[in-house]
Amino acid sequence: MKIVVINPNSSADMTKDINDAVQRYTEGRFEAIVLPTPGAPEFIDTFEDKALAAPGMMQLVRSYENEADSFVVACACDPNLKLMREITKKPVIGIGEASMYIAAMLGRSFTILQTDSYSVPNKVNLVHEYHMEENLASVKVACGEQTGRFDQYLTAARRAMERDGAEVIILGCAGLCDMANRLSEKLGIPVLDGVACGLSIAESVVRLGYTTSKARYYSAAING
Amino acid sequence: MKIVVINPNSSADMTKDINDAVQRYTEGRFEAIVLPTPGAPEFIDTFEDKALAAPGMMQLVRSYENEADSFVVACACDPNLKLMREITKKPVIGIGEASMYIAAMLGRSFTILQTDSYSVPNKVNLVHEYHMEENLASVKVACGEQTGRFDQYLTAARRAMERDGAEVIILGCAGLCDMANRLSEKLGIPVLDGVACGLSIAESVVRLGYTTSKARYYSAAING
Amino acid sequence: MKIVVINPNSSADMTKDINDAVQRYTEGRFEAIVLPTPGAPEFIDTFEDKALAAPGMMQLVRSYENEADSFVVACACDPNLKLMREITKKPVIGIGEASMYIAAMLGRSFTILQTDSYSVPNKVNLVHEYHMEENLASVKVACGEQTGRFDQYLTAARRAMERDGAEVIILGCAGLCDMANRLSEKLGIPVLDGVACGLSIAESVVRLGYTTSKARYYSAAING
Amino acid sequence: MKIVVINPNSSADMTKDINDAVQRYTEGRFEAIVLPTPGAPEFIDTFEDKALAAPGMMQLVRSYENEADSFVVACACDPNLKLMREITKKPVIGIGEASMYIAAMLGRSFTILQTDSYSVPNKVNLVHEYHMEENLASVKVACGEQTGRFDQYLTAARRAMERDGAEVIILGCAGLCDMANRLSEKLGIPVLDGVACGLSIAESVVRLGYTTSKARYYSAAING
Amino acid sequence: MKIVVINPNSSADMTKDINDAVQRYTEGRFEAIVLPTPGAPEFIDTFEDKALAAPGMMQLVRSYENEADSFVVACACDPNLKLMREITKKPVIGIGEASMYIAAMLGRSFTILQTDSYSVPNKVNLVHEYHMEENLASVKVACGEQTGRFDQYLTAARRAMERDGAEVIILGCAGLCDMANRLSEKLGIPVLDGVACGLSIAESVVRLGYTTSKARYYSAAING
Amino acid sequence: MKIVVINPNSSADMTKDINDAVQRYTEGRFEAIVLPTPGAPEFIDTFEDKALAAPGMMQLVRSYENEADSFVVACACDPNLKLMREITKKPVIGIGEASMYIAAMLGRSFTILQTDSYSVPNKVNLVHEYHMEENLASVKVACGEQTGRFDQYLTAARRAMERDGAEVIILGCAGLCDMANRLSEKLGIPVLDGVACGLSIAESVVRLGYTTSKARYYSAAING
Repeated sequence: MKIVVINPNSSADMTKDINDAVQRYTEGRFEAIVLPTPGAPEFIDTFEDKALAAPGMMQLVRSYENEADSFVVACACDPNLKLMREITKKPVIGIGEASMYIAAMLGRSFTILQTDSYSVPNKVNLVHEYHMEENLASVKVACGEQTGRFDQYLTAARRAMERDGAEVIILGCAGLCDMANRLSEKLGIPVLDGVACGLSIAESVVRLGYTTSKARYYSAAING
Repeated sequence: MKIVVINPNSSADMTKDINDAVQRYTEGRFEAIVLPTPGAPEFIDTFEDKALAAPGMMQLVRSYENEADSFVVACACDPNLKLMREITKKPVIGIGEASMYIAAMLGRSFTILQTDSYSVPNKVNLVHEYHMEENLASVKVACGEQTGRFDQYLTAARRAMERDGAEVIILGCAGLCDMANRLSEKLGIPVLDGVACGLSIAESVVRLGYTTSKARYYSAAING
Repeated sequence: MKIVVINPNSSADMTKDINDAVQRYTEGRFEAIVLPTPGAPEFIDTFEDKALAAPGMMQLVRSYENEADSFVVACACDPNLKLMREITKKPVIGIGEASMYIAAMLGRSFTILQTDSYSVPNKVNLVHEYHMEENLASVKVACGEQTGRFDQYLTAARRAMERDGAEVIILGCAGLCDMANRLSEKLGIPVLDGVACGLSIAESVVRLGYTTSKARYYSAAING
Repeated sequence: MKIVVINPNSSADMTKDINDAVQRYTEGRFEAIVLPTPGAPEFIDTFEDKALAAPGMMQLVRSYENEADSFVVACACDPNLKLMREITKKPVIGIGEASMYIAAMLGRSFTILQTDSYSVPNKVNLVHEYHMEENLASVKVACGEQTGRFDQYLTAARRAMERDGAEVIILGCAGLCDMANRLSEKLGIPVLDGVACGLSIAESVVRLGYTTSKARYYSAAING
Repeated sequence: MKIVVINPNSSADMTKDINDAVQRYTEGRFEAIVLPTPGAPEFIDTFEDKALAAPGMMQLVRSYENEADSFVVACACDPNLKLMREITKKPVIGIGEASMYIAAMLGRSFTILQTDSYSVPNKVNLVHEYHMEENLASVKVACGEQTGRFDQYLTAARRAMERDGAEVIILGCAGLCDMANRLSEKLGIPVLDGVACGLSIAESVVRLGYTTSKARYYSAAING
Repeated sequence: MKIVVINPNSSADMTKDINDAVQRYTEGRFEAIVLPTPGAPEFIDTFEDKALAAPGMMQLVRSYENEADSFVVACACDPNLKLMREITKKPVIGIGEASMYIAAMLGRSFTILQTDSYSVPNKVNLVHEYHMEENLASVKVACGEQTGRFDQYLTAARRAMERDGAEVIILGCAGLCDMANRLSEKLGIPVLDGVACGLSIAESVVRLGYTTSKARYYSAAING
């Protein structure tokens, strides 16, 4: 089994972080490679960032179409996820979607922790898109200065538990994989890392032998 | 006042059709130009089509940013609408959104007529995005062979009225502007042409002096 | 083109305020007259106020049916709007509905500013009726004492931006038209005046040649 | 205990039918009187009918405010129900609302049978207003010619059971009380008569000693 | 008429409290008996509590099937309500459901007062199950120490009125019947006791002659 | 890793069928055992069946609490799923929930195929519980006579594709695992077997190291 993890941005640092999380998860059970997106911005935040990442992401899917058993889009806002599903029959998993479904199976309500306030409404939209409103405790911002980042997340998570009734925490950014386990130990509740969640679901779907349905929505147009 | 109407595809024929509708509507009250999107596909249907249209659409907005008072995205599926709103302070109107709001002020439930069945779920998604589910009577397909097209739309619209309780018809494609008035006369109910609806709302918003809010969602990222 | 703006109350002062806003908007492009409602209360607030305004509003619509191209109901709670649509084929625009649709095209979430707390649940109901819940940041009360009214609105709007993520402000009362532009300049985001919004949409719909659908909901009963 | 049942129309025949149903239900346990609405139309169907009935309904409530322990609005579309609640502290029960709540406690999904197709969207709106969408199997029309009316209702109800999964039938018109029991015997499922349901809930609420809350929504305005 | 009130727990004290409320309500109009559930826990809180109560509740329904005209499940979280409806044709009323419907007919929004924070999400779920989200002002916890319990409820209710706009209070626990009237007098708004609400609706449904529909959902399986 | 699959009924045949599917999926990667529920009915269909299965299911979870890394509830209606999550910290996966989430990642809309019409409303309820309404194309019944069962499912699935726009099929019963692959080959779209889906997600969650959150909803009561 080979899973191709697409980092939708072009940052080498973030690609490395994601790769560390990926290799830690696979434990050699299957092959997984992490690729930065050629031509994409350094960070995916705005609608423009997503649009600029699309051509490179399509190029990656088409290049690896034959050898990959599944693709993972490794950014918590699931950029261009539907587009990816349209251009390949291989299953494509978004780490945002995967982590919300897993959270819903572990507790009644989850909080998504963000690094900045700008992307809060985008994350709320994503929650709506997956119909997870009733499972959402809150989307919270943990101030993102590098020094003391762990403590900032810890504080934000504790507030989410006390004030919003959060029972599960989702880390709303792909570059935070290292933090999940340490936070979980301190908090006593599950803290989900999107990259691990997405990769795990991709592994599942490959083992199950399922593919993206080409019946209509992801089929590309009739004469396409 | 100058309104720039972006035809998200690159078809010269469709650009001409849209321009005919645009000039018929403006009646010289203001200037409106219709532009095809450089580098876009001939027809916008799939997620890939939308992604491929994005760079050209951004280029048009940026080129006309200074002289335009407003932009109209002249495709009934409102491709890249949020992206357009993000990169300009000028108001950007999608003809799909504009026509649904207008329909909701003329009757209780509307039917959207499509040319092909492939794009039905996309249109249903768009209705959800604008929270118009309760106003939706149906999305219906009128078989699209060129000969007899008018009769095919007429038949589909009549069925929508009888079976689905449609009180208003929205033509779900930008190239059909000529048909709206003739259908309306036969049916006795409003038949909305998206291009005219979108242009009209753009004119309104310009006269009102409103602009796209840059407070958060359409602001581009913090360091953007 | 002639648009008849119905002020659902009988206050001469408010009729004058609305008329000022109306004439400022039309700029002579078309004729617009503002009429107070005979027999209506001085202020429309309660369910009883709305019921008492209905006969006079019906009388106005029927008197102006022939000469008017469209009607505007100039009260932000859209009193008797469906009733008005039922008794005329001319389009009838409610300023509450019109301003919410326009707000939704300018930003992701809007706050409605009210003068008193009593009408907050009514406004929330109206937001539900137009399915705008996800676009609603908040309904906020700006304490309404005449002295310092501008500052009270400014403070309430700033709080809505900071605490509720408001990107657009809607002034939830027809008598506040003068304040919108000044607030917008201070806040840097669009501040919508309902009267201007409603009149503008009415102008659009008249130019588009659309009428209220008489297919079912607004048809009056079969033997009516 | 004295309950005043307001027939929102002015028809003597329908008032007599409602009174028959009312007296059959009370069995002398309490006093109940049925009153036609002065100045109202013969039949309540359109938005105008409802508006024309409002003054007479208000007059009835105010005349009987002291002696009545509760009011029932005896028309299945609950006309002016909120208005009635606003002008009295006595509980006011709408037969449409009461019958839907009772239906929801007897089965999972109910069908409302109507006499004409015109009022179907109004009934659907009412179902939305009480948030009973998931409990609604369908709103169905039983052709309303006087000869054979019972059989027409029987046929419509059977279709609702077979095709829509209806488990409970609500008769969507106040003049049909005599038919409910006979239909129920034939169908083997509960068939609800709105007048009996409304009266029964009114009796309950009076015995419970509850009144309409005047905290905000039904309080009439601050200075009202 | 004989109504059997099932206390889903096995506590003799709470059975006595419920019985006091029941006898106060019936005033001899009909027979009502209150029974503790054999084999059930002392208090119903967790999913396990509900499961452990199920066999005893079924046994009670089956023992009293012939003599009872209706059953009331006297716990505000409506445990095993659907199960009860499945195994008897007699109507079964849950006090949680009954009190929410009654609250919705007395005011626009209600607050449910709880004794502990653990069961808040369960109560929110119940509100969703009955589609009463828009009527919910809040679910609030009144700290439950025996000394000063009345004052704690009073304080929590006042906060619900001021901060959440509560117009009606529902006491979210079956053992609090004595408190309702005293709270109502202090607060000036209706305070609903679930046991009285449920019993009252059960009395209504018996008088109306309705039974649980056995058409499908509560029918037990095809060969059952 | 050891996963305990609970067959909520006591049928040896169905336990064997489930075990076949389980062993086919694990391929020796981890240990998985399938256990029938002591004291449960032969088939889980009604609310009573679910209640009768609860004690045995609890007993299984408690017996295997130490050695199991995760539990799977192997019945497509997810009976007693929340109860199971409450009494163990190990993750508990319902095959109904797991298969709906996986379906949503493979296509836009799925159809659930049932063996009998009785359980259709229960399945619709389950879809609501997981907020998957917009992803639901339909719940369809495939007549369940043993002879020709495959063809009956094939016909029902084809109709779901043509009429309801189904892009993914979920087999709504745990005993049908053998059929999924053969149907998928014929139909050309994914056909999901719940047991495999549930087991696969359980494997994922164990590898991810996540557990059921005990923060509130699944914590058992205050003194638990």
